[in-house]
Amino acid sequence: MKKLEGGVTVAEGFMAGCTEANIKYKDRTDMALVFSKVPAKVAGTFTTNVVKAAPVKWGINIVKNNEEAQAVVINSGIANACTSKEGDEANEAMAAAAAESLKIPTNYVLTASTGVIGVQLPVDKITAGAKALGGKLDSSIQAGNAAAKAIMTTDTYPKEEAVEFEIGGKLVKLGGMSKGSGMIHPNMATMLSVITTDLAISKELLQDALSEIVKDTFNMISVDRDTSTNDTCVILANGLAGNVEITEKNEDFDTFVAALSYVATTLAKNMAKDGEGATKLIESTVIHAASKVEAKVLAKAVITSSLVKTAVYGSDANWGRIICALGYSGVEFNPEQVDLYIESKSGTVKLCENGVGTGFSEELATKILSDEEVTITSDMKSGTEQATAWGCDLTYDYVKINGDYRS
Amino acid sequence: MKKLEGGVTVAEGFMAGCTEANIKYKDRTDMALVFSKVPAKVAGTFTTNVVKAAPVKWGINIVKNNEEAQAVVINSGIANACTSKEGDEANEAMAAAAAESLKIPTNYVLTASTGVIGVQLPVDKITAGAKALGGKLDSSIQAGNAAAKAIMTTDTYPKEEAVEFEIGGKLVKLGGMSKGSGMIHPNMATMLSVITTDLAISKELLQDALSEIVKDTFNMISVDRDTSTNDTCVILANGLAGNVEITEKNEDFDTFVAALSYVATTLAKNMAKDGEGATKLIESTVIHAASKVEAKVLAKAVITSSLVKTAVYGSDANWGRIICALGYSGVEFNPEQVDLYIESKSGTVKLCENGVGTGFSEELATKILSDEEVTITSDMKSGTEQATAWGCDLTYDYVKINGDYRS
Repeated sequence: MKKLEGGVTVAEGFMAGCTEANIKYKDRTDMALVFSKVPAKVAGTFTTNVVKAAPVKWGINIVKNNEEAQAVVINSGIANACTSKEGDEANEAMAAAAAESLKIPTNYVLTASTGVIGVQLPVDKITAGAKALGGKLDSSIQAGNAAAKAIMTTDTYPKEEAVEFEIGGKLVKLGGMSKGSGMIHPNMATMLSVITTDLAISKELLQDALSEIVKDTFNMISVDRDTSTNDTCVILANGLAGNVEITEKNEDFDTFVAALSYVATTLAKNMAKDGEGATKLIESTVIHAASKVEAKVLAKAVITSSLVKTAVYGSDANWGRIICALGYSGVEFNPEQVDLYIESKSGTVKLCENGVGTGFSEELATKILSDEEVTITSDMKSGTEQATAWGCDLTYDYVKINGDYRS
Repeated sequence: MKKLEGGVTVAEGFMAGCTEANIKYKDRTDMALVFSKVPAKVAGTFTTNVVKAAPVKWGINIVKNNEEAQAVVINSGIANACTSKEGDEANEAMAAAAAESLKIPTNYVLTASTGVIGVQLPVDKITAGAKALGGKLDSSIQAGNAAAKAIMTTDTYPKEEAVEFEIGGKLVKLGGMSKGSGMIHPNMATMLSVITTDLAISKELLQDALSEIVKDTFNMISVDRDTSTNDTCVILANGLAGNVEITEKNEDFDTFVAALSYVATTLAKNMAKDGEGATKLIESTVIHAASKVEAKVLAKAVITSSLVKTAVYGSDANWGRIICALGYSGVEFNPEQVDLYIESKSGTVKLCENGVGTGFSEELATKILSDEEVTITSDMKSGTEQATAWGCDLTYDYVKINGDYRS
């Protein structure tokens, strides 16, 4: 597997475009389109929130009933959630306008929206934008990057990742983009993410691969414990790499899953790192847990604790808050058996051993916590399983960004 | 039932005292003692966090094995959690020193600690303080108030409440104190709270009453979703009111439960209102839910959402975040059936009806959300049950207070 520059346009036959539809933001692009020259196998995972945005309901239906799809049209600024029938109609109009300009069936167009909840999409602007997008498609790396920028809301940078790998002597490319950066606590799904590949694979196995990797990647990040109404991750596989179609869980499938997992992990980490107001990425790794499920619950408890997040923001090695978070996670364990570590490029410090402080160097601990990427390791010493979750610090800017988001 | 001035000292035979033990804070009292002249029936509820502080383990043991107790000694500044055997010994030394000065058995002294986790108590200071407390007891309202101040950490004001009511022709008094204000997400228990009454009641029914009311009072508040290692709520009932001892769940028991519930609700609301950095109390009421359990889960989801909390801080009627929080709570419901309201002394606004925005007056909504106490009502229109939870807004000061709590 080799890392590549770019995102959704690196795979053979994929193009992207973006436009300024003036939906909510001014003087920036706010609509993007990802298109495969040929129909592609489609799979997706969506929010488990009871409240589902119009594009989520649309996407669930397509993934359930279609073998293939060919495009994803996305807008930022308005989430098209809690908009009832009028919202459903606006969503379908957006898909239909994109379909018309691409000369493909409407049900080959997936949709995604992100932004404020409870506001109706301006149908005229959204359909004009969707139509214009058809004429702006390009297969360059720059076009993929521009699309990743157009779907940003409070994100401070675009998120892209791409790789290539070999399947049966054929070079396969895979790339994706995603956006954060608030209302991030994916649950069996993820935030907006579009992944494209030229791999040939059956629809069933494409869905299996996506559902599998989502659990350890997008589902292991949290910015604010708020599971969004718009979580969507879709993947399109158009087969243009020319490999023999993967139809069983063999070595080729494993190679693909590894590549997909790598891309999703990188996108997920970048979403956590660019969490609203964040200054630091917090990686929480739990080792020697009694089970995989417990390892995940424990790892997530650490990165979702407001008190751990503020302590990391203040570079304060207040490890009592870490063990406290492990303690209320719901997992049973013996606290007098737990060791805690923090680590960064500046070094490693063992904060507590068997549940009691080690008398560590506060100076080095502060230095480690001042770095941009910090790993907290919790050694449960009660088994062989491990898991990693990613989050960010809680800062003044989180409060600032969210104190008056709508205006 | 009549509201009284004061807290833990209003009931017959109860005294309180406090002292400056210089444990962590300077120039303020940091130890308090509550004492009953005669042995009192004892009941308590404690944190469900797997990580339990030394005083919690001590208290669980006393409540389990003793019919009676006579005193509660409390320190602020250090939580005596994650301190292993040395912490247990320091805790016992604190209880023993208080017992010695009061001339009562050590196992008649409950303990509670609050403050930073993972630091050992200075045994000399704590035992000197505990001994000194015996000579500082007073039954005045002022003494109760001083005790409520001594147990504060980041609290900005002391929390007290008291009432009197009649049982079998006898006047019974009941009062309590508690402290917040961070790491507040009680689970089957509460933060530090001491309640005293001169009621005569069996130990079994005292525990039943406490366990019952905790569910709808202390367990329905949250500041930061962090369930503490030190949650403790103890009640002492010394029988000096002279009523015939309550030994069955009759009308007298119900009268007592109502009084206890009132005091606990007031203390709980004050803990939420004085949450770290908070400027506003948020009351979340869910009505017409399908079951009581669902009503509670939904009510708590609203007050624990960081996005709802920041929106209230910014006086922004971003109701999409409220319905989003209801949606990921785990309760199944039809979003297109939900009505949302906000209310304060400035008025009431219906934000959404059947899941869609009503086109409400933003001006009035902002005015309502600018008040110090705001009620969010979610009408699920799917049953007859209701529940209320209390929380607070998320502000810059929360981040400031917790960015460097230990120093």
